[in-house]
Amino acid sequence: MFTDLYQLTMMQGYVEHGLHTQEAVFDLSFRRRPFRGGYALWAGLEPMLDALEALHFTGDELAYLDGLGLFRPAFVDALRGWRFTGRVDAFREGSVVFGHEPLLTVTAPLWEAQLVETMLLNTLNFQTLVATKAARCVLAAASSPHGGTVVEFGARRAQGPDGALSATRAAVVGGAVGTSNVEAGLRWGLPVTGTHAHAWVESFPDELSAFRAYARTYPDATTLLLDTVDTLASGLPNALTVARELRAAGHELRGVRLDSGDLAYLSRRIRADLDAAGFEDVRIVASNDLSEDVITALIAEGARIDVYGVGTQLVTAGGEGGGALGGVYKLVQLGGRPRMKLTADPGKASVPGVKHVWRGAEGPAPDAPYAWDVLTLGEPPEPGDVVSDPVNPLRAARVPAGLHWAPAREMVMRGGVRTGAPEALLDVQARARRELARVPAGTRRLLNPHVYRVSLAPEVAALRDRERARLLGQSSA
Amino acid sequence: MFTDLYQLTMMQGYVEHGLHTQEAVFDLSFRRRPFRGGYALWAGLEPMLDALEALHFTGDELAYLDGLGLFRPAFVDALRGWRFTGRVDAFREGSVVFGHEPLLTVTAPLWEAQLVETMLLNTLNFQTLVATKAARCVLAAASSPHGGTVVEFGARRAQGPDGALSATRAAVVGGAVGTSNVEAGLRWGLPVTGTHAHAWVESFPDELSAFRAYARTYPDATTLLLDTVDTLASGLPNALTVARELRAAGHELRGVRLDSGDLAYLSRRIRADLDAAGFEDVRIVASNDLSEDVITALIAEGARIDVYGVGTQLVTAGGEGGGALGGVYKLVQLGGRPRMKLTADPGKASVPGVKHVWRGAEGPAPDAPYAWDVLTLGEPPEPGDVVSDPVNPLRAARVPAGLHWAPAREMVMRGGVRTGAPEALLDVQARARRELARVPAGTRRLLNPHVYRVSLAPEVAALRDRERARLLGQSSA
Repeated sequence: MFTDLYQLTMMQGYVEHGLHTQEAVFDLSFRRRPFRGGYALWAGLEPMLDALEALHFTGDELAYLDGLGLFRPAFVDALRGWRFTGRVDAFREGSVVFGHEPLLTVTAPLWEAQLVETMLLNTLNFQTLVATKAARCVLAAASSPHGGTVVEFGARRAQGPDGALSATRAAVVGGAVGTSNVEAGLRWGLPVTGTHAHAWVESFPDELSAFRAYARTYPDATTLLLDTVDTLASGLPNALTVARELRAAGHELRGVRLDSGDLAYLSRRIRADLDAAGFEDVRIVASNDLSEDVITALIAEGARIDVYGVGTQLVTAGGEGGGALGGVYKLVQLGGRPRMKLTADPGKASVPGVKHVWRGAEGPAPDAPYAWDVLTLGEPPEPGDVVSDPVNPLRAARVPAGLHWAPAREMVMRGGVRTGAPEALLDVQARARRELARVPAGTRRLLNPHVYRVSLAPEVAALRDRERARLLGQSSA
Repeated sequence: MFTDLYQLTMMQGYVEHGLHTQEAVFDLSFRRRPFRGGYALWAGLEPMLDALEALHFTGDELAYLDGLGLFRPAFVDALRGWRFTGRVDAFREGSVVFGHEPLLTVTAPLWEAQLVETMLLNTLNFQTLVATKAARCVLAAASSPHGGTVVEFGARRAQGPDGALSATRAAVVGGAVGTSNVEAGLRWGLPVTGTHAHAWVESFPDELSAFRAYARTYPDATTLLLDTVDTLASGLPNALTVARELRAAGHELRGVRLDSGDLAYLSRRIRADLDAAGFEDVRIVASNDLSEDVITALIAEGARIDVYGVGTQLVTAGGEGGGALGGVYKLVQLGGRPRMKLTADPGKASVPGVKHVWRGAEGPAPDAPYAWDVLTLGEPPEPGDVVSDPVNPLRAARVPAGLHWAPAREMVMRGGVRTGAPEALLDVQARARRELARVPAGTRRLLNPHVYRVSLAPEVAALRDRERARLLGQSSA
């Protein structure tokens, strides 16, 4: 029942006009590159497959639809026992993907393929967006000469508990090494992380007693928040006192956390003081509205931050070109005939037909850099083929020799059932790490990246042009 | 279990140090005005109270915590049967609220008040942000001389199904008159709305057959999407044909929908053509990344849009100053003693003590405009009192005579149980409409609004100054 009303009104219409069992093919793709970056990280596939397998209408839901005055009893009855029985081809979760290519293709009776649109887009748009944001933050953090990792802290700024879980999951696909979200830890066996809040310090007579109390309870897992009173004048000296006391008792302070102030300056000062006092292994954790841009700027100023806690900017996928991934789901074939949506904007037109996505790598090695994606109607592209940009046919090029082509997608569901076992989240994270390493450095760049090539094979462009002419013929008739 | 790990580590620490049963008072407030607007619309209270009443740990959750290696068996045991037993004072949902005032105050044993932070912030931050965005869009739409309403279309861009439901709920608080989300319709008895997608048109041999088929199935509820082929050259003439055919059969076309192109120009052209053909009552629905700014710009150009479908920008609360509401939850009193967080940034410091929020209106009438909110330690402010800005004490002013002061908040939960029946969503919407009408026009302005006054009574400022001096004394010691 989580769907847009029009899916249901269309379904009834398809039934009435005898179209509902025709085999439909829908492509899911996005157009604008998220964060104006060079790539997106494909996430949400596993939960989406879970949801597809579970999809059905309950008695209450059918009673509600019955009462809306829009649906005939026969149609409502037909939804009883309705299940998704189709096939899904998609990039494996954790793949690197680009605009204007079909990331996922649903092949199913029209009324099934139509109903699932809202749920598919809802799951995949959001998780892909957040995973991409996380990958950008992780990349930025890792660019420090001293290294750096990202943990996800966004629970309190997400869209409800399930929104937060969904965001945590996607952040982990993108490379976050931990989360503060306990429920996510329980569900996916992730490292959960956290220390204390300002309220802890305020619950004791003074900061030093609060730090000592925390260290007494967690002698091997204490990270102290330094900024309740004054980071350098109070937090740091008190933390050093506790670090010495812990060491004297055979333990080590794990970390200190900064949540306000000039993080570049403070982290340099604190690193120097910690090192001078012999606490080289105490980690500095920082948070406070961090993003890939802020992380990059901090590192450029010599910040000495080991762990970046990213919250709001991750779960809201903030920043230019963020906020939402404009993934769309478009009919490309019905009853064996190609279908197309035209509209005035070439960027919003769909590419008709059932496409295969071939990805060309620079060599045969499993870590060879990716170079080019080409959409064909079957076979891989041949060197010398003139392939063209999906939005502007004037941008055309010849396929060079020497690229190693492989199918970029797999059949992940058939007859409404997964073709393989669900993948563990940390396996997906590992794939994402390998895949990101194959993206050319220029395309990985955070700002003004090189745009990776996605092209239409000549037969796909020709099909598009034929359909376009047919539709334009209609409108002038 | 939907909580940040540090809430649990702190809870165990409070237990170990015998602090957990001390009575704590936490204030929830935000600092930066969302969308750089003049107000926020307070939403999420009812679902938050539901969640507080339901809060507990399951056996699985306790087993998980037990296995983390952080928590002692006695503590995990103490969580068995744990319930929230505290008191909550808050603005009624649908109230207009401002920065730096306590929107909600929790009074409970410290370990209860601490645990609920993540859940409270998660629910209230997001719903307040989206309700505020919706109110801005509704206000923009209503500014047209021809009127205009907003419906929520955002399911596919929200954070999962529950994120979408939560967004729909908040959009309705903010004045959206309908939604495309069927599940939300079922849950809250909201008007659900929707028509067909491009795929419908592509499923028929041509656009006219597709329009006719839809009208045959829904003769009294047809809204036709005009832009699958070409809005003016194909969509509009075909829609006019169907409108005439429907009328000849005793029905009326309900509407047409635009989803691309220059919505101002197209809607004017279409309105003129519809009117000229005698279809003055056919509504024009428009969508395509709308926001309050786009709606305002369209109206300024004479757009003739009756219904604005707002999706992405609503559920992601996009735009400058959007994305997330930075609501925070701060300890202000413990065991009867005021508490405060200092930090270097006065805007991030908390205001200690248990405050009462008084709202002054221009007169005694139930619709008198609001003028001033003052935080006191009990009694309402008196004319002549010198009250000051929460962030900058240099901004001080005298309370004028003639304002009518009333408590702005109510006790909504006591002993962990609601003080009244849950409010229906449409009642909350009605309150929001009445409350927004009481906000001075300059404060309602979308761009560069007049900043509504929120002030500290002299005794609150004095308490803050005493606590501040005490804390600074500590750090220099």
